[in-house]
Amino acid sequence: YELKADPCGWCLILNNVDFSSDSNLLTRKGSDVDCKKLENRFKALRFKVLIQQNLKAQEMVSELQKLAQQDHSALDCCIVVILSHGRQMRHNQIPGAIYGTDGNLIPIEMIVNYFNGSNCPKLRGKPKLFFIQACGGEEKDRGFVVDCDSPVSEAPEGSLESDATPFRTLAGSTDEPDAVTSLPTPSDILVSYSTFPGFVSWRNPSSGSWYVETLDSVLEQYAHSEDLLNMLLMVANAVSAKEGKYKQIPGCINFLRKKFFFMCK
Amino acid sequence: YELKADPCGWCLILNNVDFSSDSNLLTRKGSDVDCKKLENRFKALRFKVLIQQNLKAQEMVSELQKLAQQDHSALDCCIVVILSHGRQMRHNQIPGAIYGTDGNLIPIEMIVNYFNGSNCPKLRGKPKLFFIQACGGEEKDRGFVVDCDSPVSEAPEGSLESDATPFRTLAGSTDEPDAVTSLPTPSDILVSYSTFPGFVSWRNPSSGSWYVETLDSVLEQYAHSEDLLNMLLMVANAVSAKEGKYKQIPGCINFLRKKFFFMCK
Repeated sequence: YELKADPCGWCLILNNVDFSSDSNLLTRKGSDVDCKKLENRFKALRFKVLIQQNLKAQEMVSELQKLAQQDHSALDCCIVVILSHGRQMRHNQIPGAIYGTDGNLIPIEMIVNYFNGSNCPKLRGKPKLFFIQACGGEEKDRGFVVDCDSPVSEAPEGSLESDATPFRTLAGSTDEPDAVTSLPTPSDILVSYSTFPGFVSWRNPSSGSWYVETLDSVLEQYAHSEDLLNMLLMVANAVSAKEGKYKQIPGCINFLRKKFFFMCK
Repeated sequence: YELKADPCGWCLILNNVDFSSDSNLLTRKGSDVDCKKLENRFKALRFKVLIQQNLKAQEMVSELQKLAQQDHSALDCCIVVILSHGRQMRHNQIPGAIYGTDGNLIPIEMIVNYFNGSNCPKLRGKPKLFFIQACGGEEKDRGFVVDCDSPVSEAPEGSLESDATPFRTLAGSTDEPDAVTSLPTPSDILVSYSTFPGFVSWRNPSSGSWYVETLDSVLEQYAHSEDLLNMLLMVANAVSAKEGKYKQIPGCINFLRKKFFFMCK
């Protein structure tokens, strides 16, 4: 993909920190650190960054739909970042669901599909990137010992929180004729997950989540030279090498068709 | 990942062509072409290739479990290729399900989890690659027109079949202590899908499936120089550019931590 427009696209960050008391979801301490880092990072990478804090599920849906309906015709790309609690949810296409601050859930596949070729014609053929910092379920991974080819990356964390509650652990198409250059409806979509579906995602109340901290640092060092999939491998490698009681591996669902390079000035 | 062992690992190909009459699943013409191509390709890439034809769901499970229980300690990698009918299935972690020849379904997440760090200790830290040629559901994508930056790649196909039936369209811990070098349980897994979850996957009765034909051709040209994720982008780009009534985009779920290069002699 060639990003030529400047700014190259919208970046919507939905940052849920405080949840209603009847949701049984704890305050996500450290998420503001994540949010600020990504705001600065994506601004530096030439995105128009929009931030929405503490939205209920229905308000999140409205914001996402509003973004999908924007006029993206002069833009080359679109990013959605979600920082919230999440959990496993049975689904058909794309794993996981995100909590609104009211404790209601939005399936990630619903979020992604607002932006597919059928629902969001203005982004057809353009990369649509989703970065999800949230638990994918309630499994806490204690990992396993390996023979060791990766060096120890960090000292054990002080205090850690997962993006699930510690009490009740929660964890298209159009109709154009033949013989024209066309693309599949769900193409050009990448969903980067902080953790494997079904597993907990960890966050430090002062330094933010493992995933966002690592993502930001990798983007800072490599966005000018490496493509996105390669950077996400670096993020997965660094987060999975973190030492501590629990383990975590980020990963992605990729339906991009080409290497993606950010625009760096 | 560094592949040093030669052979570098097992490659199990499960090729389902003929289905029981009460399953309502049609013969998958062209799948033998796919199977033969991938057998030769992965042999050339230094894998020990095992082929099993026309297995019932329970027999497929047995073969997969037998493979997971092999002694992989001297090997660096493991590949599973599945060529069959498939469909959408509600699930928690990884989308899709595969038909046995008896018409019974195996969820793809079950297949993958036989090989995770918890169930298959001998493959811990080593790449586990899954290539799935099967329908992901019943949606037939007619695509959409784009402004066009990709050249037309091929003339329209003659006759095509989908990997779902045309009549009744069907569509992963251990307990090691802290402070040792360890990895997350679901790490080092890549699942390459012929089509987006929920969508049909197309096959030509004489030349085989779009996905396998393209995958084989990309591996032939680039396996000596490019990493796997990059080659899968090429596959996605080529398949999604195919001209015809219906569209298809391959993609992957990636929980690898490093670039994967095949061993080429």
